Amino acid sequence: MQILPPKLIDLIEAFGALPGVGPRTAERYAYYLVRHDTASSQKLSQALTELHSGIGYCKKTFALVPAGQDISDLYSDPRRDKKVIAVVAEPFDIVALEKTGQFSGTYHVLGGLVSPIDGVGPEQLHNAELVKRIDEDKVKEIILATNASVEGESTALYIQQQIGPDRKVKITRLARGLPIGVDLEYADQITLGRALEGRQAL
Amino acid sequence: MQILPPKLIDLIEAFGALPGVGPRTAERYAYYLVRHDTASSQKLSQALTELHSGIGYCKKTFALVPAGQDISDLYSDPRRDKKVIAVVAEPFDIVALEKTGQFSGTYHVLGGLVSPIDGVGPEQLHNAELVKRIDEDKVKEIILATNASVEGESTALYIQQQIGPDRKVKITRLARGLPIGVDLEYADQITLGRALEGRQAL
Repeated sequence: MQILPPKLIDLIEAFGALPGVGPRTAERYAYYLVRHDTASSQKLSQALTELHSGIGYCKKTFALVPAGQDISDLYSDPRRDKKVIAVVAEPFDIVALEKTGQFSGTYHVLGGLVSPIDGVGPEQLHNAELVKRIDEDKVKEIILATNASVEGESTALYIQQQIGPDRKVKITRLARGLPIGVDLEYADQITLGRALEGRQAL
Repeated sequence: MQILPPKLIDLIEAFGALPGVGPRTAERYAYYLVRHDTASSQKLSQALTELHSGIGYCKKTFALVPAGQDISDLYSDPRRDKKVIAVVAEPFDIVALEKTGQFSGTYHVLGGLVSPIDGVGPEQLHNAELVKRIDEDKVKEIILATNASVEGESTALYIQQQIGPDRKVKITRLARGLPIGVDLEYADQITLGRALEGRQAL
């Protein structure tokens, strides 16, 4: 016996494909839309239809750009310092860094992290383009802003190797240490170890 | 400066309208779809478009039915006992009860619960239709399967009043007590109080 209409089951299944969405959450989303007028679901539907045709990737930084735009504003804006590049794994990492309001350089999106388990090798990342930018823009500093994970660290190491010792570019990495507002007793060993290693004079 | 393409922001906003979805979760969903091929977003988009045109409400039980179907299988199936009705607040509650595999009666969806704070009065619920069914189908038992919340309880009381003392129908309520697998020490006072009240002879 069919308890729910097939079209509703289709929607629950489609929601269930999203990351971290289990059957219960998918049902909750679907039922919310059932209860509301068609406008809510049409709005979401339209946004989905227009997503892939409405976005593209910047040819320099590989950040997300509106379709038809070749170069991201984050690169073309004259106020951005092209000689400082923050290297990030994913386009959304740019949003996080921009929110700090403390960075006026440009970005370079790798498009992932080296991860043998997931079958991502260094050749799939936008490494070569980064090295090219270093030479073309006479870059002075590369900030490796990858995650503090095994993949993040190994990608940082790989990029360091690719840039090589001959290029006169300073390679830095985001500081590892205690997050603001976290009690010492709740910090894990590795974080605390890094915080000790990276201690700074007052 | 625009960090993200407008079409992506549209999608993040549309996802953010779903219940319990904050900006971070909405970004995560949107970025998942950006990284995947258009097929994933098209599938979800299509399911959304077809949702409201693909579903309807059963004229007897107010359960969800495929569009064009007047009466739910849960009512028309001859194996279901029309003389026992489980009264639920929302169509999805039927799914939960069906999963127990222990109920062979029919359902009646109220379409909400009496909640003065949310501006839902008893006249907005499918009460009158329930009373009509009791008379037409010579119903023997009404199981009030509403939530164990203030709204659930007051709706149950209201329905009891509506049915009135003259109709020969047994009105029951789902048992309140300790959930299976929960330790006594973690149960809240009210639940434990109800479990004491409703204690049963071994």
